[in-house]
Amino acid sequence: MSDAKISEFDRATALRRRQPGVHDALLDEGWAVGHAVNGGYLLSILARALGADLPHPDPFTISAHYLTASLPGPATVRTELARAGRTLATGSASLWQTDDTGTEVERVRVLATYGELDQLTEDVRTSAKPPHFPPPQECFSPRDNPAGSAANPAMTDRLDLRLDSATVGWALGEPSGSGEMRAWFSFADGRDADALSLLTTVDALPPAAFELGVTGWLPTVELTAHVRARPAPGPLRVALSTRNMAGGFLEEDCEVWDSEDRLVAQARQLARPR
Amino acid sequence: MSDAKISEFDRATALRRRQPGVHDALLDEGWAVGHAVNGGYLLSILARALGADLPHPDPFTISAHYLTASLPGPATVRTELARAGRTLATGSASLWQTDDTGTEVERVRVLATYGELDQLTEDVRTSAKPPHFPPPQECFSPRDNPAGSAANPAMTDRLDLRLDSATVGWALGEPSGSGEMRAWFSFADGRDADALSLLTTVDALPPAAFELGVTGWLPTVELTAHVRARPAPGPLRVALSTRNMAGGFLEEDCEVWDSEDRLVAQARQLARPR
Repeated sequence: MSDAKISEFDRATALRRRQPGVHDALLDEGWAVGHAVNGGYLLSILARALGADLPHPDPFTISAHYLTASLPGPATVRTELARAGRTLATGSASLWQTDDTGTEVERVRVLATYGELDQLTEDVRTSAKPPHFPPPQECFSPRDNPAGSAANPAMTDRLDLRLDSATVGWALGEPSGSGEMRAWFSFADGRDADALSLLTTVDALPPAAFELGVTGWLPTVELTAHVRARPAPGPLRVALSTRNMAGGFLEEDCEVWDSEDRLVAQARQLARPR
Repeated sequence: MSDAKISEFDRATALRRRQPGVHDALLDEGWAVGHAVNGGYLLSILARALGADLPHPDPFTISAHYLTASLPGPATVRTELARAGRTLATGSASLWQTDDTGTEVERVRVLATYGELDQLTEDVRTSAKPPHFPPPQECFSPRDNPAGSAANPAMTDRLDLRLDSATVGWALGEPSGSGEMRAWFSFADGRDADALSLLTTVDALPPAAFELGVTGWLPTVELTAHVRARPAPGPLRVALSTRNMAGGFLEEDCEVWDSEDRLVAQARQLARPR
């Protein structure tokens, strides 16, 4: 496949295997938010490495603890198998970067259990309902940001996000107080969603806490995502909510629904407003 | 302190430090569910080891991936520091047991970030509301199990659980279909709750999926818990819900509220009905 046919996301999360369990990555400045690189994008890179090294291909549940801010540039991913079972396999992975003094610094550590999504039963007894909000053409694109598109994080250009106008009060200085955020999610270049990209989707929207009046950088301490089904083609619906802001930390819950009304991913993160 | 003054929970989760980063534990058959040991109890043991070895004492967020069933008897916990920061520290830990052939087998692996609960701000802007259900004396004790108390898991004796009668239809063969479970939680010997014991509380109730008609063993694949505040003395209220049962897996969400109406812990697990 020629490079031109590879999606921007796949190029930006590509790995080169240096030796068994060790991969080279290049963190793309196009996925930056401020000086650091987005946590969901990092999760997809770590998940790609584990998918290559574990005996099952798909992340079923992955927990990431963010240690230090990852910066655009070279990175190393190291994986370690914990257990390989018949249907599930568990492993750890870490992403490292070399700092100005030549010291290798750990950025993110993950622990994940993998399986094969195609082997799951077709049985669906989900009682959760997809979020209801207007179609994409009636939603707010960050490209229409009243503060100018330069005010958007770099990663905004990689995505086609359409935010429910009921949850963009924060962008006008009038947060609704609801602690909710909803959006349609697609890649700007039209790449279809898959298990790996869902891990970027769960951390791609503006924080739900913006609608509570929280501003500025909201670093993730820990994020756990469950991938429950391979997403159907088409735009995804993402619904975030924050219910427990206390003691200088907050949780954010995320649901991702595909075009066939399936709850394909659930995630929760613990974040610390600065 | 004399042994008689130590609570059952503290005795059952006690560790003996063999060498730096290595602890001996004895998994108590009193915390069994069937042949295996309860996952929340195991989480408290792993969290105790990390609390002893990391530079901050309290688990803020801990993710456990359950690899093989833990059995009553000796176990070894090994911890590893990933990063020690000024207010947060992250580390991994694993629990191992030696099987019949003399091979050491990994049972559970965790990744956790610790801090100091007493250092958190008093700021509370939680919008979540505590669950409403009848007081303990009007709730159902598993000791009143119509199938006889021998039908209860061993760990039931360690606890004073009082289940909301609206969520015990499953015990009478008439699950409500709601996917919810609510209970008052105390230790049978009156031990007060703390950060460590909350990790047992989040996995101590009958599974919410029982109210969906699921029966039998429901092993946890992964469980992540956030401890958000030190619980006040008194019984805790625990609310479980399952919204996404599909493909042979289900998620279960857990909230724990203390006697001062504070949301002290949140947890989510991915489980696989057998």
